Amino acid sequence: MLVVKKFGGTSVANKERIFNVANRCIEDYRAGHDVVVVLSAMGKYTDELIDMAKDINENPPKREMDMLFTIGEQMSVALMAMAMNKLGVPAVSLNAFQVAMHTTSVYGNARLKRIDSERIRHELEQRKIVIVTGFQGVNKYDDYTTLGRGGSDTTAVALAAALNADRCEIFTDVDGVFTADPRKVKGARKLDNITYDEMLELATLGAGVLHNRSVELAKKFGVTLVVRSSLNTEEGTKVRRGSKMEKMLVSGVAADTDTARIAVIGLKDEPGVAFKLFNALAQHNINIDMILQSYGREGTKDISFTVARDDADEAAKVIDENFSEYEKVDVNKTVAKVSIVGAGMQSNAGVAAKMFEALYDENINIRMISTSEIRVTVLIDDKNTERAMQAVHDKFALGER
Amino acid sequence: MLVVKKFGGTSVANKERIFNVANRCIEDYRAGHDVVVVLSAMGKYTDELIDMAKDINENPPKREMDMLFTIGEQMSVALMAMAMNKLGVPAVSLNAFQVAMHTTSVYGNARLKRIDSERIRHELEQRKIVIVTGFQGVNKYDDYTTLGRGGSDTTAVALAAALNADRCEIFTDVDGVFTADPRKVKGARKLDNITYDEMLELATLGAGVLHNRSVELAKKFGVTLVVRSSLNTEEGTKVRRGSKMEKMLVSGVAADTDTARIAVIGLKDEPGVAFKLFNALAQHNINIDMILQSYGREGTKDISFTVARDDADEAAKVIDENFSEYEKVDVNKTVAKVSIVGAGMQSNAGVAAKMFEALYDENINIRMISTSEIRVTVLIDDKNTERAMQAVHDKFALGER
Repeated sequence: MLVVKKFGGTSVANKERIFNVANRCIEDYRAGHDVVVVLSAMGKYTDELIDMAKDINENPPKREMDMLFTIGEQMSVALMAMAMNKLGVPAVSLNAFQVAMHTTSVYGNARLKRIDSERIRHELEQRKIVIVTGFQGVNKYDDYTTLGRGGSDTTAVALAAALNADRCEIFTDVDGVFTADPRKVKGARKLDNITYDEMLELATLGAGVLHNRSVELAKKFGVTLVVRSSLNTEEGTKVRRGSKMEKMLVSGVAADTDTARIAVIGLKDEPGVAFKLFNALAQHNINIDMILQSYGREGTKDISFTVARDDADEAAKVIDENFSEYEKVDVNKTVAKVSIVGAGMQSNAGVAAKMFEALYDENINIRMISTSEIRVTVLIDDKNTERAMQAVHDKFALGER
Repeated sequence: MLVVKKFGGTSVANKERIFNVANRCIEDYRAGHDVVVVLSAMGKYTDELIDMAKDINENPPKREMDMLFTIGEQMSVALMAMAMNKLGVPAVSLNAFQVAMHTTSVYGNARLKRIDSERIRHELEQRKIVIVTGFQGVNKYDDYTTLGRGGSDTTAVALAAALNADRCEIFTDVDGVFTADPRKVKGARKLDNITYDEMLELATLGAGVLHNRSVELAKKFGVTLVVRSSLNTEEGTKVRRGSKMEKMLVSGVAADTDTARIAVIGLKDEPGVAFKLFNALAQHNINIDMILQSYGREGTKDISFTVARDDADEAAKVIDENFSEYEKVDVNKTVAKVSIVGAGMQSNAGVAAKMFEALYDENINIRMISTSEIRVTVLIDDKNTERAMQAVHDKFALGER
């Protein structure tokens, strides 16, 4: 069996943890498996590198930032190889050039295009554990690139796909994917299985165990993902293609408080207004999430949308600078999104209504609603977030199998 | 004009010094020159990496040590590019893969085989300052290698040769090459010019401004080397091919206290004894410096030689384990080598005698003597080192032009 195992920065933050990871990988190796390990930079090292750079140049060229960033993972993989060697197991560390990991050109946020598997296969044939730098790639100019947020997860999944691995294990500090955040919702239960689509909705909605890019990639190539804890040997949660049989009505509740609502009141009701509005925002790289358009007073319409909380003021500014024909812009930064996700939802009426009922029972006001085939999201006041999650979780009895 | 400028770790040890180096390079750039900069790892960062590795594995695989080491220079070059960018000058950092720097396979002590100049030339044509990682290379397996001691100097000279640069400036914390160490010898004078061969002897003998590998390479490719200070704008010392006219009788005095003498007394006087002795030492990677063989008592001979002080005990052990037919091994770790170097020496009798006279005047006993065409070296008790240097320096009036 060929296994790709990915460990994040906290899992390799110090000597003790490095040896912990080494031992876990060696277990699989000794069981006869081929083991490829993907590592992030140690602990907060990437942040230290950012501080180092900003001290020299508060606005460093992105190309050079990536050149600096990549040393973080290279440090991790070299030390890990030394640790495994110390434990008597042959291991070899490889960076993005050595693999090679080909990406698009854009610095700081590149996409993986192609991974050469030759070198890794050669090392595996020598019965070595192969330790690969996550997060980094090389573009067509032979420059280092980094993959942006969730980059190391993406590296691991892409490697698993390129090597046709039997599974890709993503190690985190939680036991797997839960029906809701167990720190916030009583009775939250670990899921044994979840579909790619459900995981995607959860990732997008701030459940945050896996970055959606890695889940999308896993879905595309049919890579069996396992989310599990680096602190214990629990089985974790398997993310894979779901069959109808397995589909749960609702598999989880997620909340995201990093959001703000912008309402543009009294826009002229004529063709192209929405296009112009969102085009202006897109040109300022402001990502829009939920959108709601309603009739305003005579001859006008209102458009509300949500953005990341940090982008709210700039969004309002962009509107102010690009539009004149509206009544007012209202920014609300004390909102939160609460969502239910489940692949079974699409064939089952009444799921949304049941969620609204749970919130009504708690007297929680819904400000916006957005749905996809396998998700229902509501926008509420953020002070009610945990109460809302608990109510919805209880209503769907997610804590029970 | 194309200039290669090499700065060591102390020159880039902190933000202030990084900007100092950036400014010096930008001066040349603004004067219209093409500038290639070679950097070492910042300050004592390589030592920190060693500590980090040893904490994990006291005997780490050399391949992984090199993987770890190379991040030091990559950090330096990325930060330098950011500093130059901050000062408004386009700059690009390149590592050993990007250049590319091809080396022999051996980890920790590789030799440069070939440097591709295409990428650097391309960047220079874009009017960028090109900042290259010193000390590192890539071998035929696509693994990082490091060049061992003096590696960054070697990188700089090899780059200058590959790019056909007009000069290669090696920046240090001294003003250039002196007739003797100015901290130890009164009246020591900075030399404006010195030949490759003289510099080679001085480097080998512990004058320590330049590593002999870099000087050998400069000689081979006729690269004009300039040794100068990173702290001021003095002209420094030019190292180049010397004509007969310019040859000085004696150009400098050097001392090396990192040495120990091993005397093997009473070896059997038969063919092959010396071969077997030094072959055994070579197989344990012990480098031999001076060798002296003399007749011992009837039917035996004595062989004395010098090694680096750290190798002395192991050398004695190797002899003990591999030979039985000798009387005793004597290890003396309180010796020093003092040498005079000068390209004019070879055509001038009496130079050695004059050196011995200087030592005799000071009542300093000579334990061994070794000579080359342009060098005379004596082994003395190390407590007499500075006194010997001063006496020889004065005798040859090296402080006067």
